[in-house]
Amino acid sequence: HMYMPVSYGDPVKEYERLINGVAMWDVAVERQVQLTGPDAAALAQILTTRDLTGMKIGQGKYAPLCDHAGTLINDPVLLKLAENLFWFSIADSDILLWAKAICAERVFDVAISEPDVSPLAIQGPKARAVAGNLFGGWVNDLKYFAFREAVLEGIPLVVARSGWSKQGGFELYLRDGTKGAALWNLVKEAGRAYDIGPGAPNYVERVESGLLSFGADTDETTNPFEVGLAKQVQLDQDADFIGKAALIRIVRDGIKRRRVGLLIDGTRLTPNQHPAEILVENRCVGRMSACCYSPRRAKNIGIALIEEKWASGTTGLYVNLDGKMRSLEVTPLPFC
Amino acid sequence: HMYMPVSYGDPVKEYERLINGVAMWDVAVERQVQLTGPDAAALAQILTTRDLTGMKIGQGKYAPLCDHAGTLINDPVLLKLAENLFWFSIADSDILLWAKAICAERVFDVAISEPDVSPLAIQGPKARAVAGNLFGGWVNDLKYFAFREAVLEGIPLVVARSGWSKQGGFELYLRDGTKGAALWNLVKEAGRAYDIGPGAPNYVERVESGLLSFGADTDETTNPFEVGLAKQVQLDQDADFIGKAALIRIVRDGIKRRRVGLLIDGTRLTPNQHPAEILVENRCVGRMSACCYSPRRAKNIGIALIEEKWASGTTGLYVNLDGKMRSLEVTPLPFC
Repeated sequence: HMYMPVSYGDPVKEYERLINGVAMWDVAVERQVQLTGPDAAALAQILTTRDLTGMKIGQGKYAPLCDHAGTLINDPVLLKLAENLFWFSIADSDILLWAKAICAERVFDVAISEPDVSPLAIQGPKARAVAGNLFGGWVNDLKYFAFREAVLEGIPLVVARSGWSKQGGFELYLRDGTKGAALWNLVKEAGRAYDIGPGAPNYVERVESGLLSFGADTDETTNPFEVGLAKQVQLDQDADFIGKAALIRIVRDGIKRRRVGLLIDGTRLTPNQHPAEILVENRCVGRMSACCYSPRRAKNIGIALIEEKWASGTTGLYVNLDGKMRSLEVTPLPFC
Repeated sequence: HMYMPVSYGDPVKEYERLINGVAMWDVAVERQVQLTGPDAAALAQILTTRDLTGMKIGQGKYAPLCDHAGTLINDPVLLKLAENLFWFSIADSDILLWAKAICAERVFDVAISEPDVSPLAIQGPKARAVAGNLFGGWVNDLKYFAFREAVLEGIPLVVARSGWSKQGGFELYLRDGTKGAALWNLVKEAGRAYDIGPGAPNYVERVESGLLSFGADTDETTNPFEVGLAKQVQLDQDADFIGKAALIRIVRDGIKRRRVGLLIDGTRLTPNQHPAEILVENRCVGRMSACCYSPRRAKNIGIALIEEKWASGTTGLYVNLDGKMRSLEVTPLPFC
C-alpha cells in the first residue's frame, strides 16, 4: 500500500549506472513485518520453508513463505536483529495479516507490527566504494545478506549487504521515516565522485539476472520448486513449517512447471511486463511474465513459467506480441 | 493492489451529480474474497463480528472483521450467493491471506479466492430511475444491501442495492472483466436522460455523511466500538468469532476513544485527508482523519477519533492546519 518511484526519466542511463557505476533507490516500499517476543524465532520458523537452525544475529536469509497448500505467498529476506526480534522484508503481497493470523491461531507469544523502517538501496559495482565512504571499511566485510546496526550522522540504520539486483550493493534500512531526505542527501553526497544517480529496481537488469519477481513471475498456484527455490525449501528439517506436508506431496507427484529464460526472435523489443501466453501449435503451454531487449546479451529475452515438458524446448514455441508471432527458444536463467 | 480512478477532472460537478442527480463509479478496486465449500458459512461466521444466523441467499450485510485482539481489520459487505458461497466485498486491506490462514489453521473445508468480479456503482437520487431503465422494476424493490443475479445483454452481474454513499443507489458486480467497457457504456446510455456522469466515492459527501473510511478513520488499534460499529458486533451470539473474547474485555474496560464529527472554525477549507492532531492545551487528544468545506452545511467539517473524555467537547479543542490554529467543536455524525 505504498508507491515506489520507478524511474527518474532516463531508463537507459539508470540501467547503465546500475551495470557500470552506482545507483541509489528509494525502496521504502519494501516494508518489514516485525516479529518480537519470546516465540518470535519459533513463529519465523513456522512461517518460512527455510531451515533457520543456527541462524545468528546479524544474518539475513532469503526465506520464502508458502501457504498450507504449498503455494508461494511471498519471498522475503529474513533479518535476525536479536534473539527475539526478526524482520521479514517482504515482496509485493501483504504478509502482516497472514503472520498475525498464524500467530494468534497457534497462540504464539509474539507482537507483530509494521515498524517505521524504509530501505534505501545502493546498487552497482561502485556501491562498495560509496558505502565504504559512508560507513568505513567494515561495511565491505559484510557477507551477502549480513547486516549491522549503525548510526550515520544521527540517523538510525540497519546496513545490509543486499538488494534487488545482481550488481552487488547495500540496503540501508532507515529506522526513522522523518530522516529520509537527510539520508538521501548524505548518500547522494558520498556518491558524487562516483556519479551516483537515482533509479529503482531495474526491469532490464532483473530480467537479464533472472531475479524472481513475486506476483509477476508467479500466479495463484505457483510453488517454490517451479520458480527455482528448491534450495530454500528444506523438507528434511525438523520444523513442521506451513506448507511442508503439501510440498512433500508436490515433490512426490513431480513438478509440473518450470521458470525459464526465453530467447525471443524478431526485431528489438521494448520492455513489456504484460503477461503473454506461450504457444505450441496454438495450445497455451505457459506464460511469459516479462520481456525486453538485453543490451548485454544483444538479444530479446524473457522470463516464463512453462510446462515441464517444454522447459527445454528449442523449436515449436511461439509468443504473440502485439499481434505478431515470434518464435522462442528456452534457455536457463540467468542470462547474464 | 489495484488503482481506482478518483476523479474525472471536475470535483464540484461530481459532487453535485451525486447529491442531486446520478453518478457512475468504476469501483473495481472493491475486490471480493470468495468463500466456497461445505464450511463456507461456518468460516464466514468465524471471520465476522456480525451474527449471521438466519442470513438468506440474496442478502447482504455490513460485516466487520476483527483480529484476535479485537482490532478492526476490515469493514466489508458480506453477500450470501448460495448456501455454500459467500463474498466479502472488502475495504482497503488485504483479507485474502487472512481468510486463507484462518481457514487452513482451523481445517475448514472452504476454497478461498479472489474471483473475476469488479463492481460498478450507480449512486445518487436518480440512480433508481437509471437502474429501473436497465433492469426493470424489480431492482427498485430490493431492500438495502439485498441483491439478485442478473444478465444484462449477455453480461453476467450481481445487482445489489448498496454503494459507498448515503445518496442511494446500486452496485453492479461485473462477473466478467472482459466486459467492463460494454457495461460502462450500457450504464452511460441508460443514464443519458438523467445527465449521468463519471465519478468516484466522493470525499466531501463521505465526510458529510459520516461514512467510515477504513484505514483513514482507523489506526492499528481501533476497535469497532470506537467507530460506531457496536450494532455490528453481536457479543451475545453463540458463535465464537475471532476477536470475541478481546471485544468482551474491551467493553468491560470501557471504550477509550470515539469517532466524532468536528465543526472547524475559520476560512473555507479545501478537502484534506492528511491526518492532523486534535489538541487541548497542546496535548494531543485525538486525530482528525478528514476535513473539508461542506456545501450542504455551509461549514468546515471534519471526522476524528478522539479520547472519550473530549468526545462532547465544545471548547478548548484545536487543530493546526497549514500552520494556523483553528478551534473545533465536536458534533455527532453524520453532518447531513
